[in-house]
Amino acid sequence: MSTALLLRGGRVVTMDASRRVLDADVLVEDGRIKTVGRSDRRTAGRSKPTIDCTGLVVLPGLVQAHIHLCQTLFRGLADDLSLEAWLAQRIWPLEAAHTEASLHASAMLGAAELLLGGTTAILAMETVRHTGAVFEALETIGIRATAGKCLMDSPTSPAALRESTDRALTESVDLCGKWHGAADGRLRYCFAPRFAPSCTGPLLRAVSDLAERSGAMIHTHAAETPLELETVKRETGHDEIAYLDSVGISGPRAALAHCVWVDKDDIAVLARQRTNIVHCPSSNLKLGSGIAPIPEMLAAGCRVGIGADGAPCNNRLDAFSEMRLAALIQKPRLGPDALPAAQALELATLGGARALGLEADIGSIEVGKRADLIVLDLDGPHAQPDNADLMSRIVYSARAADVRHVIVDGRIVVRDGDLKTADLGAVRRQANTHARALRAKALNRL
Amino acid sequence: MSTALLLRGGRVVTMDASRRVLDADVLVEDGRIKTVGRSDRRTAGRSKPTIDCTGLVVLPGLVQAHIHLCQTLFRGLADDLSLEAWLAQRIWPLEAAHTEASLHASAMLGAAELLLGGTTAILAMETVRHTGAVFEALETIGIRATAGKCLMDSPTSPAALRESTDRALTESVDLCGKWHGAADGRLRYCFAPRFAPSCTGPLLRAVSDLAERSGAMIHTHAAETPLELETVKRETGHDEIAYLDSVGISGPRAALAHCVWVDKDDIAVLARQRTNIVHCPSSNLKLGSGIAPIPEMLAAGCRVGIGADGAPCNNRLDAFSEMRLAALIQKPRLGPDALPAAQALELATLGGARALGLEADIGSIEVGKRADLIVLDLDGPHAQPDNADLMSRIVYSARAADVRHVIVDGRIVVRDGDLKTADLGAVRRQANTHARALRAKALNRL
Repeated sequence: MSTALLLRGGRVVTMDASRRVLDADVLVEDGRIKTVGRSDRRTAGRSKPTIDCTGLVVLPGLVQAHIHLCQTLFRGLADDLSLEAWLAQRIWPLEAAHTEASLHASAMLGAAELLLGGTTAILAMETVRHTGAVFEALETIGIRATAGKCLMDSPTSPAALRESTDRALTESVDLCGKWHGAADGRLRYCFAPRFAPSCTGPLLRAVSDLAERSGAMIHTHAAETPLELETVKRETGHDEIAYLDSVGISGPRAALAHCVWVDKDDIAVLARQRTNIVHCPSSNLKLGSGIAPIPEMLAAGCRVGIGADGAPCNNRLDAFSEMRLAALIQKPRLGPDALPAAQALELATLGGARALGLEADIGSIEVGKRADLIVLDLDGPHAQPDNADLMSRIVYSARAADVRHVIVDGRIVVRDGDLKTADLGAVRRQANTHARALRAKALNRL
Repeated sequence: MSTALLLRGGRVVTMDASRRVLDADVLVEDGRIKTVGRSDRRTAGRSKPTIDCTGLVVLPGLVQAHIHLCQTLFRGLADDLSLEAWLAQRIWPLEAAHTEASLHASAMLGAAELLLGGTTAILAMETVRHTGAVFEALETIGIRATAGKCLMDSPTSPAALRESTDRALTESVDLCGKWHGAADGRLRYCFAPRFAPSCTGPLLRAVSDLAERSGAMIHTHAAETPLELETVKRETGHDEIAYLDSVGISGPRAALAHCVWVDKDDIAVLARQRTNIVHCPSSNLKLGSGIAPIPEMLAAGCRVGIGADGAPCNNRLDAFSEMRLAALIQKPRLGPDALPAAQALELATLGGARALGLEADIGSIEVGKRADLIVLDLDGPHAQPDNADLMSRIVYSARAADVRHVIVDGRIVVRDGDLKTADLGAVRRQANTHARALRAKALNRL
């Protein structure tokens, strides 16, 4: 695609190393940021498609590093349950009931919500089957995504989702071959063991090798609940973070969602390993899991991203809700200056980029990076007065509905609040048809 | 005003005693709800102004029972500070700098945000001076409000805001005479001692008598921080809840914002007294105050409302953010079934109505009540699928931007997301002009 696009006249929050905020034009060419600065007014925009950003705020596209698109159709079907009951009574039966068509509908709905709310890139864990259907949806709708088939091969996994180690790995390798680097690099594959208790040691070790060989990320859950820690300890004899490291699930190639129940020593280890941690504050509250010690992790030098998790444990897929909540929930414990607004925005930009292994390509507005950009309209009364601190306005006041334009890889995917890459009405109808069928099939006894 | 309005074809969440959810038309006449049910299709709407609510959800207008409109212009000027520093370094100097014109602008901005986000009624505490300017704004913009001048007469109050007991009470009585029951009862007065440490015992006792005599509410803060409790104990020898009761600040006529630091005995007392508690979850997190034991209060039979507090400690005035957060923050402590969605919606409707002393008039959609109604559009991808539990969709997924129409006292104040009672552009310009002046005047050393 050899196209140019000019975002003219916005206030640009670069998230570069010196965190500059500039009144600048952003010129995009061939999917990458070509210049950031004042254009020559005589030539700028001449024959170039231009978005007028006067009075608007331009941000790097937000990154959510822990999402389950396959669960979007389960939103509102699994509220007010503990994680274990939530999984066993709702999520696993519903995932097992998915068809290719229902997964496609679920991914389209989730990705539509994400793009409309300013999330341009995700790290996604899907279900055991039909992951190709998710990639097809992602290819169509234009979000940047690193996604993987969920791996569950332990004897204690639910029968309806359990696979043999070989089958799980073979399908992963096939999917990686097909999708890793697809859509001009916008789509990537990740190896996605569900969590330690649902996977055998041989599977986890193989995943580590395969990820290394293919240059792919590993995406899993860790230390979400005390019960999970106890289970891993009982089954392996190890603490969970140490166990994951022993099977090669650690370091910059790994992204561990949650990490709520980690102690000082775990944090030091995670920092030293440069393992990515993905904070999911709404999910951790809604499932009663707890509050992850994110400021302690950041102080120790950990790499931390943020994510909404799946729709049934949030129930939004809204990076603005997550940033705001990430900042708020630490303050009763650590004081009101804990996790200030600017740091919350880092989690959703630079932190997310690292968790996707894409820090060279996304997460900030810098020349040479991929043009993943969002444009916010902060003119609403909820974001006035306009002389307030801009980070505060973005993190504490702004909301997903303030996103006006969204660009991924230089392509306008949302313009004036409208999704341009899919028919939203059709997405909604498909989603609702399949949600009804899944509910009838999986939860007919409830 | 002798007018009729028909809301036709919506899904109506009544919040009546049996919590019925009906496919029904709501007929409004003379500012009150005349019928709820299926209209005769031959006559319905004939010559009556009608809002087509097909596919939409009709709710009682949301009630926020702790708001400081005077602080709306301070949004984003006071982030990441403890309550005491926040008050002394930012809020008090800024409040002292307010003029009539800046207060009017602040109230218009806050009320515009509230109405656009589906809040139809508030209990407001303003600053020490110029409370009449706030009432004038409220009269214009059409929100239902019970508001009061802030009272601060203790020797430890900041000099720039401190008044003599007599002056504070005299002005309160004058304002009550002028505004209590104004705008056809839509506006009411409340007596608003800031909090126990800023008020003398004689003032608090007089407030209790005056409120009783004039049939007005008492609106104050209580038990927000441990430092506040210690101060009251040191100065009065009493625990705060007991002290407030000893000076007559208790019972159904009193609304105590926060009540974060209350124990089992306090809760039993508050329940027995039928004192209103106003939960402000965002504010309590952002200022690091803590998490109020709301499920324990509800189990004990306490009356509990909800509120955003002021813009600088939230930084939204968004009932949807508060409902969602109220439900989420209890779960790590008490389990994922604590404070389920339906209960969060009760706080923002019935609980708020009680905290305003208006439970006979608002808080539910029932024949004879005031027509304070909001209409939500849950068609956005973030609120799909549509077969999910409706309470879950409203509390966990919906957002302020989903509010399409707002009716207060039978008058359409927001239609299709547009404020009808004021020019939003002018509100924004006024707000920004005055915010700049206030900042220069009050915070020039910062």
